[in-house]
Amino acid sequence: MSDWEKNVRRVVPYVPGEQPAESNIIKLNTNENPYPPAPAVAEVIKNFDISLLRKYPAPDADVLIAGLSEYYGMPKDQIFVGVGSDDVLAMSFLTFFNSKKPILMADVTYSFYDVWAELFEIPYRRVLLNDDFHYNLSDYKTQNGGIVIANPNAPTALCEPQEFFDELLAANTESVVIIDEAYGDFYGKSTRELIAKYDNLLVVGTFSKSRSLAGSRIGFAFGSPKLISYLNDVKFSFNSYTMDALTLQIGAAALTAESGAYYRSTVEKIIATREDAKKRLAELGFVGTDSQTNFLFVSHKSIPAKTIFEKLKENKIFVRYFDKPRIDDYLRITIGTDEEMERMYRVLEEIGCSRS
Amino acid sequence: MSDWEKNVRRVVPYVPGEQPAESNIIKLNTNENPYPPAPAVAEVIKNFDISLLRKYPAPDADVLIAGLSEYYGMPKDQIFVGVGSDDVLAMSFLTFFNSKKPILMADVTYSFYDVWAELFEIPYRRVLLNDDFHYNLSDYKTQNGGIVIANPNAPTALCEPQEFFDELLAANTESVVIIDEAYGDFYGKSTRELIAKYDNLLVVGTFSKSRSLAGSRIGFAFGSPKLISYLNDVKFSFNSYTMDALTLQIGAAALTAESGAYYRSTVEKIIATREDAKKRLAELGFVGTDSQTNFLFVSHKSIPAKTIFEKLKENKIFVRYFDKPRIDDYLRITIGTDEEMERMYRVLEEIGCSRS
Repeated sequence: MSDWEKNVRRVVPYVPGEQPAESNIIKLNTNENPYPPAPAVAEVIKNFDISLLRKYPAPDADVLIAGLSEYYGMPKDQIFVGVGSDDVLAMSFLTFFNSKKPILMADVTYSFYDVWAELFEIPYRRVLLNDDFHYNLSDYKTQNGGIVIANPNAPTALCEPQEFFDELLAANTESVVIIDEAYGDFYGKSTRELIAKYDNLLVVGTFSKSRSLAGSRIGFAFGSPKLISYLNDVKFSFNSYTMDALTLQIGAAALTAESGAYYRSTVEKIIATREDAKKRLAELGFVGTDSQTNFLFVSHKSIPAKTIFEKLKENKIFVRYFDKPRIDDYLRITIGTDEEMERMYRVLEEIGCSRS
Repeated sequence: MSDWEKNVRRVVPYVPGEQPAESNIIKLNTNENPYPPAPAVAEVIKNFDISLLRKYPAPDADVLIAGLSEYYGMPKDQIFVGVGSDDVLAMSFLTFFNSKKPILMADVTYSFYDVWAELFEIPYRRVLLNDDFHYNLSDYKTQNGGIVIANPNAPTALCEPQEFFDELLAANTESVVIIDEAYGDFYGKSTRELIAKYDNLLVVGTFSKSRSLAGSRIGFAFGSPKLISYLNDVKFSFNSYTMDALTLQIGAAALTAESGAYYRSTVEKIIATREDAKKRLAELGFVGTDSQTNFLFVSHKSIPAKTIFEKLKENKIFVRYFDKPRIDDYLRITIGTDEEMERMYRVLEEIGCSRS
């Protein structure tokens, strides 16, 4: 080892789901939306004035912030944006989690949370979910340096009710509470109404799922003006311009009233396919959680999840398998188009999945 | 102060140059390129397949890395990319500067370096440049936790010769040395050849200046495979996908042989305008450094820099003024088009700038 290597930060990075280059794959492994972005997004790209690119983008990301403000009825000074919700969450961990007390996260949740904690050397504690993969509120009524909860949770696909969060926040005024609502639009409820009541609540969202823009990397967060101001100070100490000029316009185009109606219709289609998938997979011998997201979290009665994962892959159907405690017999299956799902049911049948 | 605020990271962010929304301004304040991006960039945007956006971008940023590899003749595993060179530098500080010994930076240099050091709580020491704003090599032959040098330096617009860096690196094998070559294409030389000799050298570049793509946020770095691998581990622990799908294609389009020829011609135009500007400003009573960049660093013989800055602004010409020790009587003036520069000379004359 060279001398300079002693000063290197050593980390074990998060591993995202595979992004195969081939196009003949049914890709149900990264919770992407099977439908294309809103037509207004295509328009804004086609009509983009390329000469704008020679200049730096607006550092305040105003066109995107204004779009979010209008769409969600949230004042501009309560909105933060970043390069996907991962960037928003990373900046938030760096900004808010600087206590010597551990931050709290579920043992089964988005597996990037502990990666950020390790990266920034934030003490953390994994709190066990109940056997049904729901949260136990009393576990969060304890001294902590912060709390991060995904709602709906991933990969469990389950939600906690609004009262859970109200009580959680009432009990936690001494640390920042982050609610990650990446899949919120498939559930239909948000904790953002609680921001008026709790100035330490940060609610995070993304354009990657319900807005079909995973490729554009747009994330956002809502919080009290004070919380957002601290977050911006850290962000502007990291990179003055995180959002490029074209992406800002893409994001704004995805927020018009017309785009909103388009996305709500695709979310409805995905939910219809999901509800059908619950029945179809039950018929094939799967059990799983009652998903409120754009993916299913299922286990088969007789065939190990890893085996199914591998056999699906041989058939060019990619789903997600996590080789982790408690969930190593589960698959996370993104809801695709009806055609993609039909193909998957057929393959599952072929590889021996059945009710009996 | 609320209880949760005690755990907030408090920082004083970097303040970028103004990005006024009005279009009737001559903007010579952020070292942007006055010429539009290469035609291939417009093509790639116009022909972009919007359906790609529903999927996550390639996490390995391959199309951009491949373009850089081809253009610079650097193996792919020695290339890192980020959201502008600011993102690359921020990730590098986080990855490599984890010693208890201070990192070294010049007292007059890119003013984001100390902001990153403060953000990540990295001890640092500002080393005084000589009176002529050049580096004194012996100052860097001392124990340190890392070194960051901009070459050409900003805002001084000055370079150190290759031998300086060879000797600097020979004397510093125990820490990582970052050479920030944001303005390197206007100077024409790079330290990247030294990477074969020193596995602790990271050379950083950007598409914002010579490639007219400040609005796209594309930065890159070259280093030994080991250095790049550590940097990627940290990057993948922060955000799996920092580069969006469209920006990856824009970056690749800016790296074709044809785009290369286009950019070299605009760099030559800027250099010609710069050399002319040195004479014209001397005639107006300015003294300054012998710039090797796309900006000038000048001081007037009789009128305070701040006064000129304000009067230019009243005339809708924005230049950059830094209210900082040693440089508070200097202006940093980006090289614009010949027409923009002529307009500035006229205004400077009107506000009383003259040789006598």
